[in-house]
Amino acid sequence: MNLRGVGVSPGIGHGPSYVLTVSVPEPPEGATYTGEAEREKERAMAALTQVAGELEARGNQAGGEAEEILKAQALMAEDPGLVVKVRSLIDRGLAAPRAVFEAFTKYRDVLTGSGGYLGERAADLGDIRDRVIALLNGQAMPGLPVAPEEPYVLVARDLAPADTALLSRDDVVAFVTEEGGPTSHTAIMARSMGVPAVVACPGATRIPPGVPVMVDGTSGEVRLEPAASDVAHAVGAATARQAALATWTGPGGTADGHPVPLLANVGGPAELDAAVAAGAEGIGLYRTEFLFLDRPEPPSAEEQEHAYRAALEAFPGGRVVVRTLDGGADKPLAFLPAATEPNPALGERGLRRFARYPEVMDVQLGAVAAAGGASVMAPMVATAEEAAWFARECRDKGLTDVGVMIEIPSAALRAADLLAVVDFVSIGTNDLSQYSFAADRQLGAVSAMHDPWQPALLDLIAATAVAAARAGKPCGVCGEAAADPALACVLVGMGVSTLSMAPSALAAVRAGLAAHTMEQCEAAAEAARAPSSAADARAAARAHLPGLDRLGL
Amino acid sequence: MNLRGVGVSPGIGHGPSYVLTVSVPEPPEGATYTGEAEREKERAMAALTQVAGELEARGNQAGGEAEEILKAQALMAEDPGLVVKVRSLIDRGLAAPRAVFEAFTKYRDVLTGSGGYLGERAADLGDIRDRVIALLNGQAMPGLPVAPEEPYVLVARDLAPADTALLSRDDVVAFVTEEGGPTSHTAIMARSMGVPAVVACPGATRIPPGVPVMVDGTSGEVRLEPAASDVAHAVGAATARQAALATWTGPGGTADGHPVPLLANVGGPAELDAAVAAGAEGIGLYRTEFLFLDRPEPPSAEEQEHAYRAALEAFPGGRVVVRTLDGGADKPLAFLPAATEPNPALGERGLRRFARYPEVMDVQLGAVAAAGGASVMAPMVATAEEAAWFARECRDKGLTDVGVMIEIPSAALRAADLLAVVDFVSIGTNDLSQYSFAADRQLGAVSAMHDPWQPALLDLIAATAVAAARAGKPCGVCGEAAADPALACVLVGMGVSTLSMAPSALAAVRAGLAAHTMEQCEAAAEAARAPSSAADARAAARAHLPGLDRLGL
Repeated sequence: MNLRGVGVSPGIGHGPSYVLTVSVPEPPEGATYTGEAEREKERAMAALTQVAGELEARGNQAGGEAEEILKAQALMAEDPGLVVKVRSLIDRGLAAPRAVFEAFTKYRDVLTGSGGYLGERAADLGDIRDRVIALLNGQAMPGLPVAPEEPYVLVARDLAPADTALLSRDDVVAFVTEEGGPTSHTAIMARSMGVPAVVACPGATRIPPGVPVMVDGTSGEVRLEPAASDVAHAVGAATARQAALATWTGPGGTADGHPVPLLANVGGPAELDAAVAAGAEGIGLYRTEFLFLDRPEPPSAEEQEHAYRAALEAFPGGRVVVRTLDGGADKPLAFLPAATEPNPALGERGLRRFARYPEVMDVQLGAVAAAGGASVMAPMVATAEEAAWFARECRDKGLTDVGVMIEIPSAALRAADLLAVVDFVSIGTNDLSQYSFAADRQLGAVSAMHDPWQPALLDLIAATAVAAARAGKPCGVCGEAAADPALACVLVGMGVSTLSMAPSALAAVRAGLAAHTMEQCEAAAEAARAPSSAADARAAARAHLPGLDRLGL
Repeated sequence: MNLRGVGVSPGIGHGPSYVLTVSVPEPPEGATYTGEAEREKERAMAALTQVAGELEARGNQAGGEAEEILKAQALMAEDPGLVVKVRSLIDRGLAAPRAVFEAFTKYRDVLTGSGGYLGERAADLGDIRDRVIALLNGQAMPGLPVAPEEPYVLVARDLAPADTALLSRDDVVAFVTEEGGPTSHTAIMARSMGVPAVVACPGATRIPPGVPVMVDGTSGEVRLEPAASDVAHAVGAATARQAALATWTGPGGTADGHPVPLLANVGGPAELDAAVAAGAEGIGLYRTEFLFLDRPEPPSAEEQEHAYRAALEAFPGGRVVVRTLDGGADKPLAFLPAATEPNPALGERGLRRFARYPEVMDVQLGAVAAAGGASVMAPMVATAEEAAWFARECRDKGLTDVGVMIEIPSAALRAADLLAVVDFVSIGTNDLSQYSFAADRQLGAVSAMHDPWQPALLDLIAATAVAAARAGKPCGVCGEAAADPALACVLVGMGVSTLSMAPSALAAVRAGLAAHTMEQCEAAAEAARAPSSAADARAAARAHLPGLDRLGL
């Protein structure tokens, strides 16, 4: 039996399944307590404090990205709003476990409903809630019990940061979750651990415990009880791949010497080191949300300038592209009025929101200019008018390399009009695919449409690249499509001039490109456009890229 | 001063503004009552019953579409869930007006958050709430007081059905609302009354009462204190237009005799007469949601067959295209599990939902086949695989004319692949524009992107028409774009073979087409593609369509 989900962290992992189903039962509705309300409240507060302390301690122990996530959870456990709610429910007669259950559940549902970044944090609240309730009831703490003796494939409905923080590559050979998306914690943690992962995998939690499972974090395939020969083949290919990749270094380019700068997508200063270590030649997408989220006032010009300068200093002489703040109803900013929109992904996001609050963009563009030397681009641009407005604002600040993201179909279709007013474009394939197929990135049920080999997506990328070549201006790709070595060759064959990706994907893409000539890339690109399905497009392209199989890519 | 919104019902209306600002103040928070709870509950129930009765009486008086809407409101006023909530709030000590306020407001907010069809019904709940509170408090009932003596332009934040039901063309010369969209009640009522209307018009409620206003329900322009000469010109043009239009009858086609069947978009059996009266040659889009919404079980095969047969009998020999059920998280069906999705417009809508519940499609396709002679098409098709699956299911039922909507960018880009497996395509420009520009149709703030003259939208329509011509298969347009006489000429010039629209738009489109040759239409289509903005595209096309100005179109 095979399952299929969305591969979010590449590689092959195999081992017995370890299915995480431990759950804390819901305290009975209307459960009351005996004794004084003050005592019950003290009991609840003590449990919240203890769980917060444990989360913080786990964070200190884990370090790195996990530390930040767990410390944020510790803060959530003592969120003043939640504490007040718990106390008032106890005052109304509810027992502490039930009060905790109701207060956290309600808040979690609000978060889930808000979707996007906050929606994906909702799992955290459920996890904290269950820990507090287990503590109050003297039940076993949810999460991982004693680790199995051999390395396992961890299967769960979804994973909370506390579940994954103390895991190491020695314990877990792969992750499979039924829920989640490319930006869920499971995906983020798996990538940072370098462990293969498949999310949005229907039926995952019905995998019987202990059966052998092979997980392909690239294709999203999850094979149950695979034949030994299949495992041997896949592992052999992966080993060969690692060995081969290690031999490729230096700047990106084709076998016949066409340079293709390979850049990193970076989400904040903490990720700069990894990008440098992976041999990135610069930053193709510097997300700036980290500066703005979860704070009551926007960052000052000085603070922003400092952050942008750090990125430039990490890549002396390299290209650094700062993307302006991409906020929206699904990524609310505390210092702007909250918007409620029926479809946040189709709402006032990115540049559209700046049109309403120009002072925020004003400060950001000034800070990029003050840092000196960075390029800048705007997200969520649909029309030439918007691109022209953004370019004017940037040039007024003295910025000389101004671009826009191509992540809305209309922008791809009219790339020539946009390129008439900007210096470069950068294709964000994730959102471009979301809108081109009217398929929510967060929704597991429609994830098949997010296959970056979908013919219509390739059509829009090619149209954009052709327009850029005609205009004599650079066209980058900074979506996940750039991280697939075969697709990277196709993109270059279409005329894309730079590729930007998660640092962990750079080695494979560098090797894949270096194994093929520009002519091969162009033939692969042409072949990929003919079929009417994603699977056929991929096969047609790979037939022109023989070096990939040799490299195990 | 000029304002601009979205024109949703064509024509010119001018007169003094009548600004509807009467609002019922919110009952004070925590307001309590004296006396017994039972008495207070009786008071609340009596008010709910009285308002329900009044709404029903108004409905009987109004007849037609308004009757259905008002009777649905009457049911809402006595919704058992709301009644229970009101009673329990009174039991907790709240005065009846405050209890009504809290219960209705909460439910309204839930509806608003759910967006889509239900979201647009939220205004109704606010309206019922205010009527009940006014009654309880002995305040003036909200809505229209005595009508002004001369015909007026009705301006409001949004209009509830009860506000518009008793209005006639003798009272109101135009509607302007700050909120709402093309599918809001204001738009629906205005079109059925044949009165010009502009919705999503920022600043509308700040129009001073009594100032002369001229409303262009086609362009969406709202001019305050227009010069007498401008009014005379606009009205003269409109009068000339009416006179000219009356002279055109018969089937649609260009001046040089290329037939272009002009069809109607129909939402249910009640609209069939209007379509026949307006001279429609058939039904290009028969929406079937009316059969499925608001009922605990899906309609039987017999009930459906009866409804489809009625449509065929209204147009003997004419084309009738039944669209299969277009449900989704924003148009919940009581007989299917409710879905909560962060972006319903990007979720499991239309054909996607059928893939999960094939039994519903099975019955519907069987009923269309049993009715005999109708064509059938599926909404929300993104890929050739989906189109092939739908076509197979239809042909298994014996259906011989099977098509798909082109309303997702990927479907337009890959129209040739889809046409390889279906018999026709029909472009839904409203959703196609929503996805192409990543701009929610319901959101006033991004409505400028829904201008059907947007160059990228024209690109996708042209690509689809070209693919259909190459395949030798029909390509219709059933979105609002078809209702603009100039754009209708452009669509025909691009190769679109049939146009389907609201019946009220048929006369103007018929006249506009008949005034131009196919060569002129083709020249207009070519000219419209060159500019980079919607306004320029429109101007460039119209320069090739001199007959429109002569007709006042």
